[in-house]
Amino acid sequence: MVKLNTNENPYPPSPRVLEAIARGADASVRLYPDPEAHALRARAARVYGVPADHIMAGNGSDELLALVLRAAIDPGDRVAFPVPTYSLYETLVAVQGGAAVRVPFPDDFSLPPALAAAGARVTFLCNPNSPSGTLVPLERVEALARALPGLLVVDEAYVDWLPNVLVLRTLSKSFSLAGLRVGLAFGHPDLLAGLRTVKDSYNLSRLSQAAGEAALGDLPWMEANLARIKATRARLTAELVRLGFRVPPSEANFVFARRPGEDLGPVARALAARDILVRHFAVPGLHDALRITVGTDAEVDALLAALGEMVRA
Amino acid sequence: MVKLNTNENPYPPSPRVLEAIARGADASVRLYPDPEAHALRARAARVYGVPADHIMAGNGSDELLALVLRAAIDPGDRVAFPVPTYSLYETLVAVQGGAAVRVPFPDDFSLPPALAAAGARVTFLCNPNSPSGTLVPLERVEALARALPGLLVVDEAYVDWLPNVLVLRTLSKSFSLAGLRVGLAFGHPDLLAGLRTVKDSYNLSRLSQAAGEAALGDLPWMEANLARIKATRARLTAELVRLGFRVPPSEANFVFARRPGEDLGPVARALAARDILVRHFAVPGLHDALRITVGTDAEVDALLAALGEMVRA
Repeated sequence: MVKLNTNENPYPPSPRVLEAIARGADASVRLYPDPEAHALRARAARVYGVPADHIMAGNGSDELLALVLRAAIDPGDRVAFPVPTYSLYETLVAVQGGAAVRVPFPDDFSLPPALAAAGARVTFLCNPNSPSGTLVPLERVEALARALPGLLVVDEAYVDWLPNVLVLRTLSKSFSLAGLRVGLAFGHPDLLAGLRTVKDSYNLSRLSQAAGEAALGDLPWMEANLARIKATRARLTAELVRLGFRVPPSEANFVFARRPGEDLGPVARALAARDILVRHFAVPGLHDALRITVGTDAEVDALLAALGEMVRA
Repeated sequence: MVKLNTNENPYPPSPRVLEAIARGADASVRLYPDPEAHALRARAARVYGVPADHIMAGNGSDELLALVLRAAIDPGDRVAFPVPTYSLYETLVAVQGGAAVRVPFPDDFSLPPALAAAGARVTFLCNPNSPSGTLVPLERVEALARALPGLLVVDEAYVDWLPNVLVLRTLSKSFSLAGLRVGLAFGHPDLLAGLRTVKDSYNLSRLSQAAGEAALGDLPWMEANLARIKATRARLTAELVRLGFRVPPSEANFVFARRPGEDLGPVARALAARDILVRHFAVPGLHDALRITVGTDAEVDALLAALGEMVRA
């Protein structure tokens, strides 16, 4: 099975992560985890150069996204985001009874000016964006934060500290820890205090905290994997373009491959029949695209060979 | 440090749990966990004789409690529970904007008749109750479920299947897995479908799922620890009574030791000064009690020796 549909890292995490899990897998699992994940946050503080009281650990960044809406919005409040983007935003807004304000990205996936004018209590910006993989430059993100009336949640990127900005990072992708659910929120302590009021006390298991801490303790391992993924991404992008796809420049571990006007559902299904899974969005406006995770070189070769037989260049 | 304040199991989990974690601590942690925890639920189905589609796995039963309120109540809806009880109910009702209806337990901690008449959308029954450790018999729980207009959530006990009953179980206590956050909800699939709409997809890490499955696969280990804890509990209770405490019969891994009218805050602090931690509730009506986890025999001996010097029999 070539699994290129859920944007996991094709390479394992640092050996130090597995060592940390092995060390933690002892009688101490009978004890509750640290509700404040102090050791993990202290490590993240050193890695990211941010004070520990500006960091909160979550059960994946999905939990942190949910906490934001639980803490920040009342029923009917507006929550804005550019579309297409991470589909969880839509789900979470519905669960919390908010009003979703969807602002379409332009064709080049640059920041839509209407976003700042949406008058939202919370604005989500997935950056790099999914499914497009495109990145809004930091100076644009900062200008957006200054122009907004409410809270800006930047999902997966960095921006200078502003009191209304919360930055979320996951260890699922670059650090290869999707299975252990470790996310980090960076923001002003007052913002984090609001999230804490709606957080389960023991939201992150002992082993996940230990694994996250160890992963952050071995940046060279992560960076080496990132370099391999970037090289594979460049090759995948070039080959997809050669096959007639349009691929916006990706800053993520996936690419968004489009054949304007052509329904790629049949291609996705034909790939699945060969045990190659990619993501197809069966919705208007996205049916002509595939989101493809950057796997190993061998996985990408298998995908490209199969695609080469299916589409006209 | 003698830590008898948070009701953890003093004995480690089954060696099979640590083996399962060791097996899971490999490159596969880069993959997302099963959002539906199929293997864990299949094992729980066999252990508890309940179909797997009547079971949901949570990140501790705390997450499951939160999901219930998120799924079942609208702002202002009534949520009833007898008091004193697990303090999280109060917190979760406040977070969700519900109206808490607190029905006092009688002195013997039997089920207060007013509970059924509270007209609540959701009723929580912690059984055995915390901090009292007392158990409401199953036939009373079933009668309550039949008399209630809304949903009954029985936290930690069994009751025959009724469509408006959700039963929560944690693996934190008897299975010694507090650090890994594994809870189970048992109820009708329609009820669970409602919870699923407000659950984070990947709410439970791969290692926690594997550990929970392994723990459920070694019942004799858990039962042996339970037998040791019960024997220690009987001794602890008898000695506390000899020291002048009133102790209702506990069916949990803790006891509720009371000296009516006497503020036990100073005793709790004096114990803490000797590195013996017990739980004191600095609230009206509970200030004359300590909640003491049933630790190992050595831990309980240390506690009893210290208490013997502090209180008059």
